[in-house]
Amino acid sequence: MIGGSAINVLIGQSGGPTSVINSSLAGVISSAIEHGFDHIYGMENGIAGLIEGRICQIDKKIYTEKNIEDKLKSEPAAILGSCRYKLPEDLSDFVYEKIFQTLEKFQISSLIYIGGNDSMDTVVKLNKYIEKNRIAWLHVIGIPKTIDNDLREMDHSPGFGSAAKYVATALNLVRTDVNIYNVKSVTFVEIMGRNAGWLAASALLSNYKKKRKTVNLLYLKEVEKTKEDILSDIKEAFKYENNLVIALSEGFMDKDGFFAKEDKKSYDQAFGHPVISGIGEKLSNFVAKELGVKSRSVELNILQRTSFLISKQDSKEAFELGYKGLEKSISQTNLVPVIKRKEKETYEYYIDFVDPLLIANKEKYIPKAWLESYRVLEDKIIAYGLPLIQGQVEEKFDKGMISFIGLDDFTKKAY
Amino acid sequence: MIGGSAINVLIGQSGGPTSVINSSLAGVISSAIEHGFDHIYGMENGIAGLIEGRICQIDKKIYTEKNIEDKLKSEPAAILGSCRYKLPEDLSDFVYEKIFQTLEKFQISSLIYIGGNDSMDTVVKLNKYIEKNRIAWLHVIGIPKTIDNDLREMDHSPGFGSAAKYVATALNLVRTDVNIYNVKSVTFVEIMGRNAGWLAASALLSNYKKKRKTVNLLYLKEVEKTKEDILSDIKEAFKYENNLVIALSEGFMDKDGFFAKEDKKSYDQAFGHPVISGIGEKLSNFVAKELGVKSRSVELNILQRTSFLISKQDSKEAFELGYKGLEKSISQTNLVPVIKRKEKETYEYYIDFVDPLLIANKEKYIPKAWLESYRVLEDKIIAYGLPLIQGQVEEKFDKGMISFIGLDDFTKKAY
Repeated sequence: MIGGSAINVLIGQSGGPTSVINSSLAGVISSAIEHGFDHIYGMENGIAGLIEGRICQIDKKIYTEKNIEDKLKSEPAAILGSCRYKLPEDLSDFVYEKIFQTLEKFQISSLIYIGGNDSMDTVVKLNKYIEKNRIAWLHVIGIPKTIDNDLREMDHSPGFGSAAKYVATALNLVRTDVNIYNVKSVTFVEIMGRNAGWLAASALLSNYKKKRKTVNLLYLKEVEKTKEDILSDIKEAFKYENNLVIALSEGFMDKDGFFAKEDKKSYDQAFGHPVISGIGEKLSNFVAKELGVKSRSVELNILQRTSFLISKQDSKEAFELGYKGLEKSISQTNLVPVIKRKEKETYEYYIDFVDPLLIANKEKYIPKAWLESYRVLEDKIIAYGLPLIQGQVEEKFDKGMISFIGLDDFTKKAY
Repeated sequence: MIGGSAINVLIGQSGGPTSVINSSLAGVISSAIEHGFDHIYGMENGIAGLIEGRICQIDKKIYTEKNIEDKLKSEPAAILGSCRYKLPEDLSDFVYEKIFQTLEKFQISSLIYIGGNDSMDTVVKLNKYIEKNRIAWLHVIGIPKTIDNDLREMDHSPGFGSAAKYVATALNLVRTDVNIYNVKSVTFVEIMGRNAGWLAASALLSNYKKKRKTVNLLYLKEVEKTKEDILSDIKEAFKYENNLVIALSEGFMDKDGFFAKEDKKSYDQAFGHPVISGIGEKLSNFVAKELGVKSRSVELNILQRTSFLISKQDSKEAFELGYKGLEKSISQTNLVPVIKRKEKETYEYYIDFVDPLLIANKEKYIPKAWLESYRVLEDKIIAYGLPLIQGQVEEKFDKGMISFIGLDDFTKKAY
């Protein structure tokens, strides 16, 4: 500690939102209160806000009395605000001096950074700076999150379970809508995940133990298909079913790049810049034309991550990672708590700690063996994903609408 | 009655889905059981299915024992299947003969048709046929539904409350997502309703008693705007707020048709037929280019009507309309039960019966006086809409997903 014995924590959130980043935040805050931290601070808009000195202070009394922990557990997105900011490679850059001046000023002994693989790069760099400058008064710990489930070194990432729960349920809902007309139809449901197909594949959870499948086909970036393959898949599926539901990863592209070309064609016209319509819309137009059937595309968009549905399992794990992360920061630095799965019949997990360097800037993909066939993938995803979507966090309703608290309900400006 | 004293009901669902058409269906079935109807039949895919003789029989024992009433109340879409079929104007058309032969065969004494303004046209025509042919053994009653809230002769239409509840909540969720970055941004949220802006206007419910508005601007078909107006609205709003949320009716078009032209431009290319991208996407592209800010469009799509959220008030009213409709059909024909609002401080309603001719093929719009200003509309919509979105129907979860029953869980084929 510098200039005294204060133990203070500063928490930041970074990258894209999930339904449970605020559960991790609640885990850190509750842990800090229980471990007797003097002050609890938040960066507004992550490391970018810290650089600008935008810090708020969490009011421990209000937090406890108004049961903010419970409210944060049902609130999606990042209540502290987020950023997409990459720290410079050069550790002698002025930005580091600025950051560490602020940290000294607030006598921060623990810095907890909740984010994905880009944010873990921030954790790595801050620790490099600590090591290089032999700073003894600060520990920096990362807490993982992403709906994409593409973080390495863990069984799954917090945020994925809730997004998967939303996706699988949305497909059940779309299925009720699709079934009502007695005409041949194809409905594409476009699901987030540019590089890794985990979330799109979790659409298959909705097929669990169904006589009639909710999802008939699935297209992932990971499995190569030509436009002819797609037409023949659909024709084959029509032999058994009138109304097809096709789950589609937003990162999917046909092998020959036929659908990619369409964007370029749109470039010159419209408003003079590319009209990037989703792959779902393109496939839908293509199928309608080629097969003469009713076709539409449904994009699950940002509501996937600001979930109507929060998995209780996911929320619990996210909270614990925050809680244990803060605890670890008292004695150690440069670590990330992660969920590991025990090899058992029923789902059990434990928390382990890993080096952020193993997560930063890397991606994890669906194992090749799972992609052998649609049938294999369905079995694998159900065994893997079903335990992660169990239970529902109770939403807070106000006047008939799910509603949320604001940062100023339990913090004050500290700058 | 023909050839005996059987009292049998045949129920159909028609038009686009809502979250509570199955509540109305449950109301009819439960009422029929309580009023001692001998047999309860369903048309598969509405009148189109009836013409083809596709009839199922509801198993009263299973319905009661398995509490299907409760399950139907939490199930969106139309479990009997739907159609978009207009009966011929000419009452001597062969199709009528076919319909009435089937009705005679099943000894139907009550026909209940749940649908919107197009479906009420079916109710009108069947009653015309009854009148013309002096048929005494059959009564035909319509039950209203639509998320669009554009049916005349009623305070509001069943289905609207749940859709409005979803829209207002979705906007609260989008707002949490929008707030996280510290950069200027515009998010358009495109809401269903091609001709009437009721549902888009219900986005304003999310502003109820908020210091910081959830929705900053609203564009309806009913209020004329040029593209220049839009830019100036947004510039003005940016004076007070960094992250704008704009609710947008899918039927909105600028006064000069600038955005309509974009579709035509897209016509010749792509797959040789028009790429109809939503107005939200067009406005988003336009704003990004003209103002150089981050802009995106979120389409609430079919999940608006296959709701994650079902309003308890809406469900209750939809059930009662079905219940009372069946009751009325015992003694009368050619009527539609509707919800009327009492003129009181707090919301109270009663059920009245009207001639389907007053509803069929007509539309109801937002009153002109409400459109005087954004402020007036917000006040009016909140007073009007807030009572309709109160309470939540409990969803049924199976393995962590909201899940649904199928028609064959409580019916058998009757043809």
